[in-house]
Amino acid sequence: MNYYMIMYILGNLMKVEGCLMVVPALIAIAKKEADPMHGFFTTIIMLWILGTILTGLKFKNKDIYAREGFVVTALSWIVLSFFGAMPFYFSGTIPSFVDSFFETVSGFTTTGATILNQIEGLPLSILFWRSFTHWIGGMGVLVFLLAIIPMGGDRSMYIMKAEAPGPLVGKLVPKVKSTAKLLYLIYIFLTIAEMLFLLAAGMPLFDSILSAFSTAGTGGYSIKNASIAAYDSAVIEYIIAVFMMIFGINFNLFYLLMIKDFADIFKNEELKYYLGIIAGATALITLNIVGMYESIEAAFRDAFFQVTSLITTTGFITANYELWPEFSKTMLIVILMIGACGGSTGGGLKVSRLVILLKMITQELKRMVHPRSVNIIKLDGMKIEQETVDSVTSFFVIYVFLIFGSFIIISVDNFGFTTSLTAVMTCVGNVGPGLGGVGPVENFALFSPFVKLVLCMDMLLGRLEIFPLVMLFSPAVWKKGFM
Amino acid sequence: MNYYMIMYILGNLMKVEGCLMVVPALIAIAKKEADPMHGFFTTIIMLWILGTILTGLKFKNKDIYAREGFVVTALSWIVLSFFGAMPFYFSGTIPSFVDSFFETVSGFTTTGATILNQIEGLPLSILFWRSFTHWIGGMGVLVFLLAIIPMGGDRSMYIMKAEAPGPLVGKLVPKVKSTAKLLYLIYIFLTIAEMLFLLAAGMPLFDSILSAFSTAGTGGYSIKNASIAAYDSAVIEYIIAVFMMIFGINFNLFYLLMIKDFADIFKNEELKYYLGIIAGATALITLNIVGMYESIEAAFRDAFFQVTSLITTTGFITANYELWPEFSKTMLIVILMIGACGGSTGGGLKVSRLVILLKMITQELKRMVHPRSVNIIKLDGMKIEQETVDSVTSFFVIYVFLIFGSFIIISVDNFGFTTSLTAVMTCVGNVGPGLGGVGPVENFALFSPFVKLVLCMDMLLGRLEIFPLVMLFSPAVWKKGFM
Repeated sequence: MNYYMIMYILGNLMKVEGCLMVVPALIAIAKKEADPMHGFFTTIIMLWILGTILTGLKFKNKDIYAREGFVVTALSWIVLSFFGAMPFYFSGTIPSFVDSFFETVSGFTTTGATILNQIEGLPLSILFWRSFTHWIGGMGVLVFLLAIIPMGGDRSMYIMKAEAPGPLVGKLVPKVKSTAKLLYLIYIFLTIAEMLFLLAAGMPLFDSILSAFSTAGTGGYSIKNASIAAYDSAVIEYIIAVFMMIFGINFNLFYLLMIKDFADIFKNEELKYYLGIIAGATALITLNIVGMYESIEAAFRDAFFQVTSLITTTGFITANYELWPEFSKTMLIVILMIGACGGSTGGGLKVSRLVILLKMITQELKRMVHPRSVNIIKLDGMKIEQETVDSVTSFFVIYVFLIFGSFIIISVDNFGFTTSLTAVMTCVGNVGPGLGGVGPVENFALFSPFVKLVLCMDMLLGRLEIFPLVMLFSPAVWKKGFM
Repeated sequence: MNYYMIMYILGNLMKVEGCLMVVPALIAIAKKEADPMHGFFTTIIMLWILGTILTGLKFKNKDIYAREGFVVTALSWIVLSFFGAMPFYFSGTIPSFVDSFFETVSGFTTTGATILNQIEGLPLSILFWRSFTHWIGGMGVLVFLLAIIPMGGDRSMYIMKAEAPGPLVGKLVPKVKSTAKLLYLIYIFLTIAEMLFLLAAGMPLFDSILSAFSTAGTGGYSIKNASIAAYDSAVIEYIIAVFMMIFGINFNLFYLLMIKDFADIFKNEELKYYLGIIAGATALITLNIVGMYESIEAAFRDAFFQVTSLITTTGFITANYELWPEFSKTMLIVILMIGACGGSTGGGLKVSRLVILLKMITQELKRMVHPRSVNIIKLDGMKIEQETVDSVTSFFVIYVFLIFGSFIIISVDNFGFTTSLTAVMTCVGNVGPGLGGVGPVENFALFSPFVKLVLCMDMLLGRLEIFPLVMLFSPAVWKKGFM
């Protein structure tokens, strides 16, 4: 294990987090928010001192391999969340450190599950940081790091693979650094585009920026207690719904769009399934709830908004779907577990994994009646390596085990079946709202500190797609000489 | 597809079902139960006429292959349930045919979910048939057929493989027919043993026979409204708990016991995990509920009973666990999904599949840090074929998809999250009770006929472990010349 390189990356990460925190710190100064100012600057100073010490270490071997990639990614996210929580805690906005940590993990992992009962009236700098964590976590802070600091050439691909979501992580262009830059450029461009649309639709500037951050990261933190429903504007709801849908698409496709490679976009099976599920679920839910609404348009709008909000694992709310018929609620819970496309900022299982699993099942059924048949699984017309299929099935198995394992653990808090199970599902899937006690108009304040920490772990496991964090605790990874 | 052979087997199956129905018919005569008598004899005559026609067809080719094995198994269970439902319907005991069908499918698949609100007071012959379906379905009616009628030599292994539960179906002795006979001998011996123990403990003869049927098949139908709690006897509860545990063990191990091969029994990993889970879950639940009981023994007894009842997917009740703390309820729901050992009469995912999945995950994690490592998964010291591992993972994926797919469909009845989801889980796992509206003191009468039929399909899919029924509807299987 290349400990020096890991410390070097963590040091850089701390410096970057310190820099990012300067933005809310400046807002605190401008708005004369004394306590948050104190909170941000204390944290910034800590991050810079520690970061400078760690990046100042002298070492020669800059090589990293798969295990360093996993370990550094897992540690980065823990460190990031730990320091990211400090402004909430030091400013007194969130009096408990566990709660501050929960809110930050939920932010960086783009879950958007909050422990705050009252959001309106919080200092603006704090609200900014809260939504900003979504934006930072959405595309991935290590991808950001890869774009800006020099790091062991293309070996850094291992870091990108460990942090980026989805079963198939590739480079857009030959160099990792350039790929990372391109991804962030697309991300920034789309975020600004949404912000401008929201401004044009009459949303205040501050709200537009923060809503764009939350949408871009598919996070779901809103600065209103009633989430997006608070703006009471059909235009704003459609804008956000469409942008949620966009941020749930594999970013590689936007690159293909940039280089005008339309053929490959049309060949993309994941996109077809993704749009198909959104269309199907929206249609079924609209039909199911239309009787509760004054117009078909209103029913369609709420259905479309909640479907895109939950499949992209954003978690914005325009309707208290807890009051909808069970069929609609069940549909929402199931698409929430499916999640967005690989290579997007969304969470969940990912549509591409679902597609690969469906193809694997079909193959298996064929093999059972015709044992000598050859098993080839194709996606977008290309053969999927057996290794990839195995890793998708393993991921699915661990994902299900993780959900039911956590469900057992958090049931010690003695909330009902629906509350506990959907709390775990929504945290592992990085969504935000669930049903029952964690429904669309509820929050996570009710859980004990122990359960909140378990859910933090679930959110991190979900965001990093399980393997990096599991590796961190696996003896095999730490064995000396193991390569 | 060898249609003649399929019809020949179905014809034999009908004759056998007609013969088995003679037992309750005789009870109806003895007890002068006029309506049931009419019901049983009408059905018996239908079965015998149809059976004689189908077995009378002349043909030469008695070869069957994998696909015939799947198709005949799926069709047999549907036919068996269809005719098995008739006595309930013709006798007027259950006025709706869908309800009669549900009760029978639930019986044969050893689920034990009932639509009856009032069980006590039903005609004895009907009660007998109801519990007898558990016993017939437990070991498998086709295995019974293999034991008694001549059928294409060892090609009939395909039928055994399609009907027997668990990922690894092997022959105890070189011949399929002898294997089937041995299995039934062990089954009969254990059933009689339990009956004698129950008699000795003071349970009436009729109750002892029917309780032994239900335990042996890990079914769960009781002839008391309050299930086993009605006998209010600690001794009876312990006897049944221990026998449930026994019937959840792979029957191959009883054969090993017969031939005194203790070494192989001790090597059996599935057994260790199975007993380990029972011990662990019992201990945790006892600790969790002990405050609600007057003595540790009483808490332990209820915990042990409900754990064995749910992991073996029997579904007998001695305590309304709905009143227990959420942690205990969650534990029960999770072990209910795990299920019993492969090659037992129990349902669920099966412990051996869980063990194989856990080993697969471990391998995958190793491979991620050390890509060139060799993947060998061993069970009981023997290498598991990659094919078996693939089929276990496919099964798991389909199992989870089936649960969530059915969950969406049955939510049209608009019962809550807990009721709908646990109803599907308990039906697919062939258990019986769930939580909420299908909790331990509730029943399945509340659902609409459509949802009842969906749950029937779930029970059959669970009992036959999905593949045979899916094959029945797969075009590839019916393609001409496909082999």
